[in-house]
Parts: sequence; structure tokens; C-alpha cells
Amino acid sequence: MRPFLSHPFDDDKLKEECGVFGVIGVTDAANFTALGLHALQHRGQEAGGIVAYHPDHGFNSARRFGYVRDNFTNAAVMDTLPGQLAIGHVRYSTAGSKGATAIRDVQPFFGEFAMGGAAIAHNGNLTNAAALRRELIERGSIFQSSSDSECIIHLMARSIQKNIPERMKDALRRVEGAFSVVAMTRSKLIGVRDPLGVRPLVLGKVGDGWALASETCALDIIGAEFVREINPGEMVVIDEKGLESFHPFERKTSRFCIFEHVYFSRPDSILGGRSVYETRRQIGVELAREAPVEADLVCPVPDSGTPAAIGFSQESGIPYAMGIIRNQYMGRTFIEPTESIRNMGVRLKLNVNRALIKGKRVILVDDSVVRGTTSRKIKDMILEAGAAEVHFRIASPPTAWPCFYGVDTPERSKLLAANMSEDEMRDWIGVDSLRFISLDGLYRAAGEAEGRNDKQPQYCDACFSGQYPVAPSDKIEQGFEMKAAE
Amino acid sequence: MRPFLSHPFDDDKLKEECGVFGVIGVTDAANFTALGLHALQHRGQEAGGIVAYHPDHGFNSARRFGYVRDNFTNAAVMDTLPGQLAIGHVRYSTAGSKGATAIRDVQPFFGEFAMGGAAIAHNGNLTNAAALRRELIERGSIFQSSSDSECIIHLMARSIQKNIPERMKDALRRVEGAFSVVAMTRSKLIGVRDPLGVRPLVLGKVGDGWALASETCALDIIGAEFVREINPGEMVVIDEKGLESFHPFERKTSRFCIFEHVYFSRPDSILGGRSVYETRRQIGVELAREAPVEADLVCPVPDSGTPAAIGFSQESGIPYAMGIIRNQYMGRTFIEPTESIRNMGVRLKLNVNRALIKGKRVILVDDSVVRGTTSRKIKDMILEAGAAEVHFRIASPPTAWPCFYGVDTPERSKLLAANMSEDEMRDWIGVDSLRFISLDGLYRAAGEAEGRNDKQPQYCDACFSGQYPVAPSDKIEQGFEMKAAE
Amino acid sequence: MRPFLSHPFDDDKLKEECGVFGVIGVTDAANFTALGLHALQHRGQEAGGIVAYHPDHGFNSARRFGYVRDNFTNAAVMDTLPGQLAIGHVRYSTAGSKGATAIRDVQPFFGEFAMGGAAIAHNGNLTNAAALRRELIERGSIFQSSSDSECIIHLMARSIQKNIPERMKDALRRVEGAFSVVAMTRSKLIGVRDPLGVRPLVLGKVGDGWALASETCALDIIGAEFVREINPGEMVVIDEKGLESFHPFERKTSRFCIFEHVYFSRPDSILGGRSVYETRRQIGVELAREAPVEADLVCPVPDSGTPAAIGFSQESGIPYAMGIIRNQYMGRTFIEPTESIRNMGVRLKLNVNRALIKGKRVILVDDSVVRGTTSRKIKDMILEAGAAEVHFRIASPPTAWPCFYGVDTPERSKLLAANMSEDEMRDWIGVDSLRFISLDGLYRAAGEAEGRNDKQPQYCDACFSGQYPVAPSDKIEQGFEMKAAE
Amino acid sequence: MRPFLSHPFDDDKLKEECGVFGVIGVTDAANFTALGLHALQHRGQEAGGIVAYHPDHGFNSARRFGYVRDNFTNAAVMDTLPGQLAIGHVRYSTAGSKGATAIRDVQPFFGEFAMGGAAIAHNGNLTNAAALRRELIERGSIFQSSSDSECIIHLMARSIQKNIPERMKDALRRVEGAFSVVAMTRSKLIGVRDPLGVRPLVLGKVGDGWALASETCALDIIGAEFVREINPGEMVVIDEKGLESFHPFERKTSRFCIFEHVYFSRPDSILGGRSVYETRRQIGVELAREAPVEADLVCPVPDSGTPAAIGFSQESGIPYAMGIIRNQYMGRTFIEPTESIRNMGVRLKLNVNRALIKGKRVILVDDSVVRGTTSRKIKDMILEAGAAEVHFRIASPPTAWPCFYGVDTPERSKLLAANMSEDEMRDWIGVDSLRFISLDGLYRAAGEAEGRNDKQPQYCDACFSGQYPVAPSDKIEQGFEMKAAE
Repeated sequence: MRPFLSHPFDDDKLKEECGVFGVIGVTDAANFTALGLHALQHRGQEAGGIVAYHPDHGFNSARRFGYVRDNFTNAAVMDTLPGQLAIGHVRYSTAGSKGATAIRDVQPFFGEFAMGGAAIAHNGNLTNAAALRRELIERGSIFQSSSDSECIIHLMARSIQKNIPERMKDALRRVEGAFSVVAMTRSKLIGVRDPLGVRPLVLGKVGDGWALASETCALDIIGAEFVREINPGEMVVIDEKGLESFHPFERKTSRFCIFEHVYFSRPDSILGGRSVYETRRQIGVELAREAPVEADLVCPVPDSGTPAAIGFSQESGIPYAMGIIRNQYMGRTFIEPTESIRNMGVRLKLNVNRALIKGKRVILVDDSVVRGTTSRKIKDMILEAGAAEVHFRIASPPTAWPCFYGVDTPERSKLLAANMSEDEMRDWIGVDSLRFISLDGLYRAAGEAEGRNDKQPQYCDACFSGQYPVAPSDKIEQGFEMKAAE
Repeated sequence: MRPFLSHPFDDDKLKEECGVFGVIGVTDAANFTALGLHALQHRGQEAGGIVAYHPDHGFNSARRFGYVRDNFTNAAVMDTLPGQLAIGHVRYSTAGSKGATAIRDVQPFFGEFAMGGAAIAHNGNLTNAAALRRELIERGSIFQSSSDSECIIHLMARSIQKNIPERMKDALRRVEGAFSVVAMTRSKLIGVRDPLGVRPLVLGKVGDGWALASETCALDIIGAEFVREINPGEMVVIDEKGLESFHPFERKTSRFCIFEHVYFSRPDSILGGRSVYETRRQIGVELAREAPVEADLVCPVPDSGTPAAIGFSQESGIPYAMGIIRNQYMGRTFIEPTESIRNMGVRLKLNVNRALIKGKRVILVDDSVVRGTTSRKIKDMILEAGAAEVHFRIASPPTAWPCFYGVDTPERSKLLAANMSEDEMRDWIGVDSLRFISLDGLYRAAGEAEGRNDKQPQYCDACFSGQYPVAPSDKIEQGFEMKAAE
Repeated sequence: MRPFLSHPFDDDKLKEECGVFGVIGVTDAANFTALGLHALQHRGQEAGGIVAYHPDHGFNSARRFGYVRDNFTNAAVMDTLPGQLAIGHVRYSTAGSKGATAIRDVQPFFGEFAMGGAAIAHNGNLTNAAALRRELIERGSIFQSSSDSECIIHLMARSIQKNIPERMKDALRRVEGAFSVVAMTRSKLIGVRDPLGVRPLVLGKVGDGWALASETCALDIIGAEFVREINPGEMVVIDEKGLESFHPFERKTSRFCIFEHVYFSRPDSILGGRSVYETRRQIGVELAREAPVEADLVCPVPDSGTPAAIGFSQESGIPYAMGIIRNQYMGRTFIEPTESIRNMGVRLKLNVNRALIKGKRVILVDDSVVRGTTSRKIKDMILEAGAAEVHFRIASPPTAWPCFYGVDTPERSKLLAANMSEDEMRDWIGVDSLRFISLDGLYRAAGEAEGRNDKQPQYCDACFSGQYPVAPSDKIEQGFEMKAAE
Repeated sequence: MRPFLSHPFDDDKLKEECGVFGVIGVTDAANFTALGLHALQHRGQEAGGIVAYHPDHGFNSARRFGYVRDNFTNAAVMDTLPGQLAIGHVRYSTAGSKGATAIRDVQPFFGEFAMGGAAIAHNGNLTNAAALRRELIERGSIFQSSSDSECIIHLMARSIQKNIPERMKDALRRVEGAFSVVAMTRSKLIGVRDPLGVRPLVLGKVGDGWALASETCALDIIGAEFVREINPGEMVVIDEKGLESFHPFERKTSRFCIFEHVYFSRPDSILGGRSVYETRRQIGVELAREAPVEADLVCPVPDSGTPAAIGFSQESGIPYAMGIIRNQYMGRTFIEPTESIRNMGVRLKLNVNRALIKGKRVILVDDSVVRGTTSRKIKDMILEAGAAEVHFRIASPPTAWPCFYGVDTPERSKLLAANMSEDEMRDWIGVDSLRFISLDGLYRAAGEAEGRNDKQPQYCDACFSGQYPVAPSDKIEQGFEMKAAE
């Protein structure tokens, strides 16, 4: 049975595909992991898994569809995961583009090697996975899942190194793309970030133990102290003797994903030494400077547009207001909905605060425009409620290119900004004005006072610029056309 | 099996106990009802039920624990509820105070009378239900549920009137307390509000049909036009010939529940001709006037404190900020949680935006203080994150008395304000200052320019004032002591 | 959701509709009740329920669809049913004729009266239930279920007697038809049998406590000693002081259901002082005398034809053999089967022992012929396997009339014997010979040496004779035509 | 969740561990497979799986705990398994000895190879699986399951052959022990039997297609014609061009499992050209000759003792009777039973026909004695019911050695016959006499007129004789001591 048949209420956002967490040296490590994954649920809502190790009980795992809070808070499940060392993973997968996830695709993946077992959880995407998979199958590996991440464990199985951390280095040197990996053996917790550091990974201290997590908000929930980020290209190996750091890859200049600042990460996380919330608020400030407009109210499209709307209001002096109210009881769990429910779309999730909006000139601040379908529906709702004018301000540049580094994006032809100019988009959505923040403005808000360094961009911004820091070789083989050099 | 064993993550709020909805004259009335109940889910999250009538298929019903979106969007369920006439109910019940709800306690209740069947859904609470139940049992009625609302259907069964609307009048003249009732026969949709109009009930027009709902937000979701409120003491009977209005009760001055403005209703609903959002924002304005304080940030306790925090910021000029971030994946569905999850409490739901809060003087705006337990935990979190000062501002007067009209309140001894002065509460919570809005301030924010008329208060404010507009006779019999006359 | 949508694998048998059990004075009475119901599962396979009473925990109940062993052996369920006094019920209901059972139709039924609660479980059928129900509704009773048995609890609620046993007498004097009732109050276990004693009810002693059950096999499973049958028209009231016997009804000559001997009861039960197994074996002996035939093998149609086949073999000297093998993994739980599964019919359940049957003249002994559909399919299977001749011998007379006393029978037009002579049935089924035991032969096998007393028959044999000992008044009102007097 | 936590109602039998089925060239092959597995359910009751292939939909699989009829008759499941080629597997596994089966241990196993996918289902046991697994892991294979059978698919993945049938030959030449394998590629159905032919595998023709099954009863249910057995050491490869037969192994003299005749196979199956039922009946005849005793009744221990009891009665002239009645509603699905249910043991399943047994001298015929625990309980029940004498006659020789070829047996120290002489067993069980059939008698009943050829036994009878036709190398490594040469 496929529990998430469809997503009729797709909110037209890019989706982060994974969150990872690991902890060592604490009683009930699996419980800590469940909490960490709960804090990272926004990075992957479809399924989650935890592997724990206990000297008397060996490796145990549980993998479930649905929210962490619905599966991994239950004593009957958690009692099966004893030990002081555990890792976990939450994942998202679109039904349409990839087929429904089977439970066997849910990470962490586990492999039994001659020197003992290991489990890994991967956030990111390998751009040469298809080629690797072909090669591994030819050499006799049997894949359990349709997940590209499984290549890592097979590469480890075939490594001629004598211990698991060395085998992991071997394996990760063969893969290309973006990866933040949390792994475990019977005695070690391991964290690795790819040489560009595209996806986040942070280190925390909790009592005498250590934690690794995609974001700092997952350290907060378990009461861990944020120590530092794992550096791009760094591998940390933690056991009872302490933490060792390695740099197994060729050194490269870091290219952290700027969209983590715009949308993926939680506002209470700290990325690159900066509050995500503050960066988003500052985007609103920049937007108000770049694209001012006379109006009565600044309203966020809830919830992701809120910090930028606050910034816009503060910079422009136009009052901030909740013009659109979000239904708190929406989830992603509509199972085989009726046709009429399916047609309700955005109304199930959002309602206009009619008494407030009527007769007003409204600025709506949203984080991004992907297909533009939801933007149109929101505009319809606002106008039906009697708004005098509707102005969209978008807290990111036009999203014109797909991401191949661990974010679920529609194919290029479905991206509104790949097909239309800003003016065409304004007309298609049907609003009085539509403005996106500039790429330089975004970089400034993210702390780069000089804006983007076009020679050597400080971030990965391929979804805006089409400049891919790692060639997506599998996709190119399948026919994807890179942006022509300018 | 009891799906909601306990509420370890109780957020220390008063809980509205019910939401009601009904619709007539539309294709797939049950689907409309599901949507309406989804919009009213905040009024009752534990369980829901729908009854529909179709001339060929008779009355059909479905009752389920859990969210509307998880149960009543499924085609397999909704196909069993054909017809153009349907009513529905969502309910909340605390495990601790009343024992877990059995599915037989989930409304609507249905009764087969000599002249045909009828179903009713009730929002409110009958203050003489225990006495009525005793009397009915003595006369030979068999109760199906432990719900007080079932009295109404038994009183109807025993009425000597010849048709169902008349029997309903008979029955409702025997009950005391607060009730907004939506009912249906094979051909009629009926709505009634008690003479004081304590709980809301609104009327909408949808195509050629009509809808009744607890709040206007449930009309919005189905695209219905808001016509008017059902008046206190009014009964409307709607069939294919149209709407008839009756006033079966002795006339009284209305006493609408002021807490609906403060917390229960959704901010996008319109109550008494006023936007709930605007009233809440205005409470913040009044609070900033009544209880100003020097600070760096005004932060809402999410999500219910948000409109008042916006108003406080606008009136005081202190910047509004998201100092506390809410985890969007919390629900009320922790089933048999582990001990360590149970101990996490508020942390599972809220996280402090540490980078923002550090070193700042913070004003926290919350809607109410009930037991005070959550307020203490939030203060702890804010101080741990390094705030320089913490000032609480509360958008309601001290809650010192239990509600007997359909709101779940702890017994009086558990209410912080029943046991402490404002200063004692400040010290117990451990903040630099704590101030509640005055009762007059609240009335002003709710549109009463002169404040509260103490001779004949415009609202029911018993939870603040101890002045109960209907004597809670069952409770008095059980030993509850009313406030001594002043 | 309706768990038992259809019965594509209907085995074309009459179905007993209920089994009842009760026990007092033992620790964990509900566990004993679960065991007793498990032993009575053949009397009702669709659903079961248990009510238990404990002085500290009051009345508790659990009602479930499915087998007793799947629901009432689970510690999580049984822990909710503490106490030394419990009753239970298993039920069968056909989907086609009555609509799927709702869980609220599952007994025991519970009623709260002014002097305390009572629960009842009923085996049998009330022939004036429709009229009673109409009358009760007119007087203001609200029915919870579509079950006729619920009338009893409403009649009790309206009785003016002061205690529950007296109220039960009052109620049962108003009902007509067949009933074996087990009931309980907070301190008493009650058993009653209708004046004709149509359905069985037996009394056992278990330690210091007592048990009541439909059949003695349910006493065996709990290790209880069989004391005696409850007499027709007797009511026993058991509490800690002991057992009292009453005879509240007008005395009548008993008319026990003879089909209990033929098919309904378990072969290891004792009815009327006789082993059911032995009576069935003796039917085979009588059949061999009445309808001998030359053949090579005597094979039972499993499993109900087995004892008669043994008797036939012993009397005739023709070897007994297992010519048809029953799949032990069949159940009644095919949920929404595929079309091709649906078409398999009897093959899913039975397979011919081909190597044995080939070339043989086979006598098949079955307990009864209802619609004849299964008999035809079995004949087809036997002939396909290469049998030389097929002779059917039936351990009951032709079933030509419906039962209105608690057995599910097709309407008369569907009964093969209501429409055809014995020869016509033989040709329609397509066998070399077909013979039924005579009514006198059946009575002899059941211990009546002189056969049937046509003036005052010793048993109820209405399904064979059309002579109904209680007029089926509801059915007559609906148009059923009784047999013309001869 | 582990659906089959324990088996408190263990019936003290050896358990066949698997049944296999495959079909090609029919519409809805998966439905046929479900039916075949239903007929083979007695060979594995814990879980089942089906893999089907359709050119447009690729390979699809479903694996479930529980009975075939509960999982694979449901249209929602079966619709996901389109195609004209499918294989399936049912399995048994004891919780105690091996830990609960995870769903990933449920076959068929699937592997994607460079030339396409293949699925295999295995009945039997590999005696060198542990050594193979170690070797494969050292070379970089990742095992998905704890099942030994998975070795086959990894050996296939590493073969250097160019097509799947050749790879399967390669793989099977590396394994030792007993195997009947059914496998499939995108176009071929493959069946293989080990050189000794320990486990059965038969071939059938169904319309234009072909079927493979563990037993002929699975051919009967789908209406297939039984063609022949797959020969020991034979591989058949079937595709649209027809059937090809190979003999890839070194030739050996066949050693079919004689216990298949005694107990494992269904009585309506044909093994080695003989009716299983007839062999069992003949065992009873031999037993009556070898171990006669004066008595009043011959009663089978249901249901497996029935054919031998019939034979015993026919040979001895002592009447056959149903002295013990089996509850038809027992299953293996008691989930977390209460303590008192757990203690009921055999009573839940069997009841004595008291009225029949009282005062009688009873011969009980059972198929085997393993631990003897159930035999003792049955004796207790019979004596409690008042039998005058109890004589056990066992339709197999004393079971004194464990099976390593695909049957679940207790370890040797738990086998009653490994620790006691026949007289000691009689005393320990507490019966008047106890006799087992001789090994020669068993061979005679199985068609070997001269009895057992001790030089070159015609069957595998290691469980009786301790003579293992394939050395159990993994077990010997773990310390198992073979029988000393005589």
C-alpha cells in the first residue's frame, strides 16, 4: 500500500529532500535521534528511519512512513532501539516524478561488512549515481532500494580498506555531487560533508556525548550546545576517545546552498554564523529598498514569507498584518481524497482575513515562485475578498533552473521563470506588480556586503543562475542541457 | 483502544469543546460538511462526525477519532454519506477530567422518532444535564453515551408534539446553559442558539442552499456568502421552501462569550460584526497603553499571541520579531509516548530564536495564563537563550473562574489567578514584569467604547469576573461555590 | 467501513445467529467468557462482545468484528475488562439480507436504569420485535441499534418494577418467539429460556462460581462441570448467595430446535442428555437403513457430514474414506476479493482426493441441502476427478421452510426443497441418487424411539414441516404465508 | 511490529518451512499464484510473497505477514501485480529459535542483474549457507535479510555467465543441502530440484501455460493438469517457446523426505505417484498389524492422525470414532495473549467428546511425537473425560534427530525420543501403551514392499535414523554431533 498516493495540495515550493541526525554517548540515543528528526521534519515529511546500536542487542532499526511524532515517540517502537549510539534520517519524495517511495527506500541504509555493520544517512544528491549503480550491478552488487544513496554502502562493501571509516573515505571519493552524511559503526559516529559543503551539517555537544545534525534547531531540541559546523570536505569520526577530524577530499572553495537561507532551513537555525531568521528579515529590507510600492498593508504568505514581510514592513513603514490565515490542521496526509476535496486546493490551507483586506492595497511577500500556480490562486482569493491592489514581492530571485543537489524541483519546462520574463510572470499571475529580489540583494542579505562575486560565487545559486558547481553528469547523459557559457 | 491516551503536551490553554456545521440544498452535502469541519477543527480536535440524508439511502453517519482531514476526505468514507443535507460536529475532550471519549460519545446524535429520524450536533454545555439525565433514566430512557448533549434527543423523543421542530423547541425549553445546536430531519436543516447567545452560530448562503456554522471561516472555505448571525434565542428551520425564523424562548439580554474574541475563534472569522483579528490586534494596542515597558523586541508566543503582539508593537514602536519558533509538525497525536518524550514538554513545540534573543530585553505577548506552567517553561527557554529581560503581557484579564458553558477549564484550584495576585504570579513565573489587560480594556478592544457595563455586562466574562449569567446548577449540587455577591 | 462486505464463499448452510455465555464468581471473568465464546464461535462468526463488572471500575465492555481469538485474547483488550462477573455474545449476520452489521448492533446490550446498570445477551429471535419497536419509539425510546434484541432492554427500562430481575421478567413476558438470554447486573448473573426452550442454554459450576452457556462445549473449555440445562420457561438468578430458580411464564410443552442436533451445535456438546455426535452418527445409521445403495466408498462432505458418514459406513459396511479434503486456512474474512477469487467458490475450501476417488462409486453424506448450489459444485468436482457414480445422502429432511427463531435462512423461494420434489432435486443437482432422512428417522436418531408425535411434536421442526410453534407475527404482517392446515 | 510474537499454542509438530509456486502464460498470473499459495498454506503459515512481471509495469512484488487468504485475495493488492508470469512463496519461522521474521526475510528475493531482474523462491535449507554468507560479505555483497536463501541471489549476481539460467546453475552448484527453487526472469519461469530431490516440486499444465508447485494440490486449485514431478537434480526453464530440461548437477540417487508422506504434505496431494492419503491410511493398517491392542474405539488426534486412524480401524475391526473434536476457529494468530489464555494450551484447540469416551478403552492415533508435551495433555483430557484405557499409536517412528533440510525441529535435547526408550516415553506420557510404527513398516506403507534398504535408503529419514544424506556442515562447525557410525 502506498500511504501517500498523491499531493493534491502541493504548495508549489521546492522541497528539501532530507534531514540527518546522529548522536553518541548518551543514554537512549534513539530517543534523542527522534527528537532531532522531529526538529528537522521540515526537511523531509514523507518517511523517517532510525538505526541504533547496543552491545548486547546489536544493530536495530525502525523505518516508517509519516511524521516522526507519529512513529518515533511510541514506547513500543522506541523500546526496540536501545543503545548509546544512533543515527536517523527524514526524507521527502514526490510521488509524481519518482514513483511512491517504498519502505525499503527509507534510510538509514545498513550494510554488514566483514569487520562489522555500518549504517549511513545521506542528505544531498549524487550526480553520478546512475553510472555508479550500473557499474556496481555489473560487478555483482544487489541493490535493495531505488535510492541513489545506496551506492555509498555498496562502494564501502567493495573497498579493500580494513576499517569502516577508511572504507567510507574510499566510497565518498568515488561519488560526485552534494552530500552531508551521518554514519555509524558499532563504536563510532561519523559525519562527512562534500568538498563544496552544499548541504549543511553541524556538530553539537550534549553532556559527555556528541551530536551531528543538518541544522542547529535539532541541537536546541535535545539541549545540546552548538559547537561548530562540519567544514566542507571534512570528515569527523567520534568515539569514546573523542573526536578526530580528517580531510579526505581534494580541497575546493565552498559553495553552500543559498536557498537554505531563503527557504529550506528553519528560521531559528544558525547557518554560516548567521541567524536564518535575520537573513530572511534582511531580505525583506533589501526588497523594500529595491522594489518599493505604495500600499496599506504588508502581508506574508504564511508561513515562509513571514520574516521577509516583517523586514519589508520595518523598512517601508507600511503596517505589517496577517492578511492570510493558515489552517493549522493541514498536513500532507490526504489519502485517496474525494474529487471535490482535490479541487479545493489552496483553500483547505489558507483563508483570507476578509474584514482586514477589503478595500486595501496589499503587498504580499512570498519566499519564491516555482510554477506560479499557488501565487495565482492566492491572488484570486485576495481579490475576491475585495483588495484594491495586489503587489507581490518575492524573497528570492526567479527560480529558473532545477537543482541536482538534493532538492526536489520540477523539470525546467515547468519553472515559470524559465519561460517568462518578470513582466510576463506579473501578467500571468495577474497582479498589479511583481518583483523579485536581485541576486546581489540576496547575497547582501546573506552577509556578503559586496554582493555576489561572479568570478567565484560564494554560494551555490544554480537554481537562479544556472551555474552548476558540479556537472550533473547523470542528467547530462539523460539529455539535460546546461546553460550556455555567457 | 483509546487513541488519545493522554495529552502530555498540553499547551495550558482553555479548550473550546465543539464546532458545528450543517448544509442543505447542495450536491454532496457531506463533502461540504467535511470542509466546514476542517475549518472549525480548532474548536475540537479529538473526534468528528457527519450525518447525511438521502431519500434513497436514508440517514448515514460516520464518526471517527482524529482530524477531519484524516478521516473525512477519504472517498471510501465519503461515498457512504450521500445526499443534499448533512450536519457535522467536531469535539474536544480532556482525558484527565472526563475519561477518554468513547466513539459513542462522538456527535451528531441520532434518534428515530415515530415521525422519522433526526440528528443533532451541539456546541455548548447544559448546566442542568445531570438532573435531566437522572429524570430521563427514571422514566425509562436508555442513554447511549456519557455526553450531556444526549439529553436533548431523549427530551425530543418524549415530547408530545407532532413534528420534529416543535419537539426540539419543547426539548430546548427544558435545558439550561449554553447551546448552539445544528440539527436535521429528512427534509430540514435547523439551527438554534440559546437565549443568551453564549456560543456563536452563523448563517450562510451557498448557491441555492444554506449553511450553518460555528464561525464564518467555515463559510469561507465552502465559498458560501455570510448572511448573518443566528440571533440569541432564535431557531431557524430551513427546507426547500426557504428559511423560517422562530423565537421559542423567553427573551434575555445577550451575553456572548468574550473569550471567543480573545482565543477560541479563528482570527479570520467575523464575530458580532467585528474581525476577530482586528479585535486581537486592538487588545495589543490597549495593552501597550495600559502596561508599557522599555524593551528591544515584542515577540508573540506563537501562534495565538501574534495579533496582539503586532498591535503592541505598532502602538509602542518597539520592533515586532519572531523570537519563538513553533514546530509545524506538532499535533495532538502522541500515542503512548516514551517517558523521555513526555518530559520534553514545550520544547517539542517551541524553540527560541537564540541568535535574535541573546542580550535583548524581550516583551512576550500571550493570549492568556491558565495554570501558568507553560509560561514558566517559555520564560526558562528565553532566559537560557540569553535574554536580558523578560516581560510578559497577557491579552486577557486573569482567568480565575472555570467556564461551565462549553469550555474545558481546570478546576478552580488549578487556575493560577484564582490563587495569586498579579505580583505573586509574576514572581512565580519568574519574569521581570507581568501585566494582564484590564476587563475594561478588553471590552474596549472588543468595540465597547465605554468599557464594561457592570450593571448589565455586554458579554459573558465569567471566567474573569466569576459572574455566571446562568447558574451552574449541576456543579452547585456537586459543591461548586459561586463568588459571593460583592 | 464494513469489514465483511460479502460472503462469496457462502457454504450454503443455515446459520445459527448467536451464542451466549456468562460467568460469576471467578477471577478474570472476562477471560473465562472469551474462552467460552471461542468454544461457541461456530454459533456466530461475525462479531463478538463482552461486558464485565468490577466494583471499582464499574461496567466495561468491548465489542469487535471478527473472531474471538483475534480480539479477546489480547492482553491490551482484556485488561480493560476486570471483574468476577461477565457475559458475552457472538453473532452472525448475513450481509445480503440485512445489511452489514454495525458495531453498535453487536451485543451484549447495556442499559443504565435508575437502580443501576444491566447488560443482556440474546440468542434467538423475537417474532413480535417490529411491533414492539414501533410501540417503544412512539413512547419515546431511542434505539441504538437495528437489532431486535434491543427491545428487551427498553422494555426493562420502562418496567415499573423495583429491581432488575423483576424488570426482566416484565420485559420477557411482552416478547414472543425464541430466546435464551444471559444477563448481568452489578451483582447477579441471570439466565432465561423461552417457554418452548427453542434454543439451548446450560448451567455449569466452575470452582465456587457458576457459568451459563449455549452449549456444554463452552463449559468444557473453562473446566466447568455441567450441572444441567436451564429448563424451558425457567429463569435462574445467581449471586454470591447462590442460585434461585423462577418460572415467570405460562407453562408450555417444550419444542427444542431439532436442527441443533443436525448441524448447529458442536458434536462434542450434550443436548437433552444426548451426545450430539452420537445422534449424528445414528442419523447415518438410520439413513443407511432407509436409503441403502451399493457403492465403494462412503465420504463425508467435510466437516459437518462426518459423524453421519461414519454411521452410514458402520451400518452399511461400505468403507469410510476422506474423499474430499478441506482447506484448513479458509475463513470468512475475504475482504473485497478480486473477481477471479470470487469465482473460485467452493474450490478454495474443498479439494477432491483424486487418486482415491477415481473410478469409484461414491456415497457423499452431507448434513442438509439449502439452496443446493454447493451440492452441485461438489458433484462437479467429484465427477471431474473420475468418480464412477455419485450418491448423495442427506442427514436431515428437505429444508422447505424458513426459520424465524434465530437462524438465518434464505427466503422460502430460494430453498430448493420448497420448489422441487426429491427426484427433481436429484436431477437438478445431477447425481445418480439423492435421499434425505425421513422426519421419523431423524426423530428416532434423536432418541424418540417412536418417531415424531404428529399431534404434539417433541421438537421444533418448522424448517422441515412448516409447523411453526409460535406464529411469526411480524413476518405475517410483512406478507409471509403460513402453511395451510392439512 | 512483530505480528506473530509467540506461539503459545504450539501444537508440538515439526513444521515444514516453505511452499513455492510459479506460473507462466496465463492472464493474471499473480491471482493464480495466490490460489496456489493458499493451497500450500500448510507448508508456511507465517508470511507470504508474490512477484509478478508485466512488460509495461516491470517487476512488482507484495510481501505480507499472515495468511494468503487475508492478504492476496484483496483487489487493491492484486491490482499492483499485473502480468502473465509470477512466482510466490509461503514461509514458516519459529519465533523462539530464530527471532521473529522481518518482512525483508519474506521471499521471493529479487535481484537486479546487468541483464535484467530475477526473483527466486526457495523451499529447503542450505547446509553451507553460513560459510557462503561469510565469503560473500568478504567479497563485498550486502545482505538484505537474515535468510540463508539470499545467498543464491548473491551467487547469481557474481556469476560470470551471460544469462540468468546459467547464472542460476552456477549459483546452485555452490550450495549444499536441500532445495526446490522456483524462479523467474522477465520471460522465463524456472524450476530446480536438488540432486537428492529432498523436497517436492511438481509441474502442471494450465491452458497454454505452465505451473510449478510444491504439491499437486496447488495444481488442483487452479484447474491445472498434473504433468509430472521435476526430477531430482533437474532444472526446467519455461518460456513462450516451451519447456527445456537441464541436469546441471552431478547425478545422485534420490532421497525424498519420507516425512512429507507422514505429515507435511496434504492428503490430497500425490507424491512419487502415490496418494498421500492412501499412504497414511496404509500406515494405520501396518500399525494395526505391528501393534494390535484390544479396545472399544479408534480415535484420531485431529486432524493429522485421521487417515492412519481410519486404516487402523479397518485393519483391526475396532470402530472408528471422533473422540476428540477440533475447534475450527483456532489459528496461529494469537497476538500478545493474556497469561490465562497462554496457559490454556491445547484446550483452546481440542475438546474431548465426553459422552462418547466415558468408560471406553480408547486407541489414539497421532502422526508423530516430537517433544511429547501435547501427547501428555491429550492423555490428561481423555482420562479426565473418563476413558477406561488410553493407547497411543504413532504413525511414524520415534523422531530422534533434527532435520537440517528445511524443516523446523527443536534441538536434539528437546526431542523426547532422543532421550528416552519407547517404554520410558510411555511412562512419561502416562498411557497404557505407546507404540510407534517401525521404519520398515513406514517404508512398506510408502510403497517399498521390501521395507527400507539400509545400504542405500530410498528416502531421507534422518529425523528417525540420524543418517544425514548431506553433511550439515554449518551445524557441525557450530558443534552439532553426528551419529556415530554403527
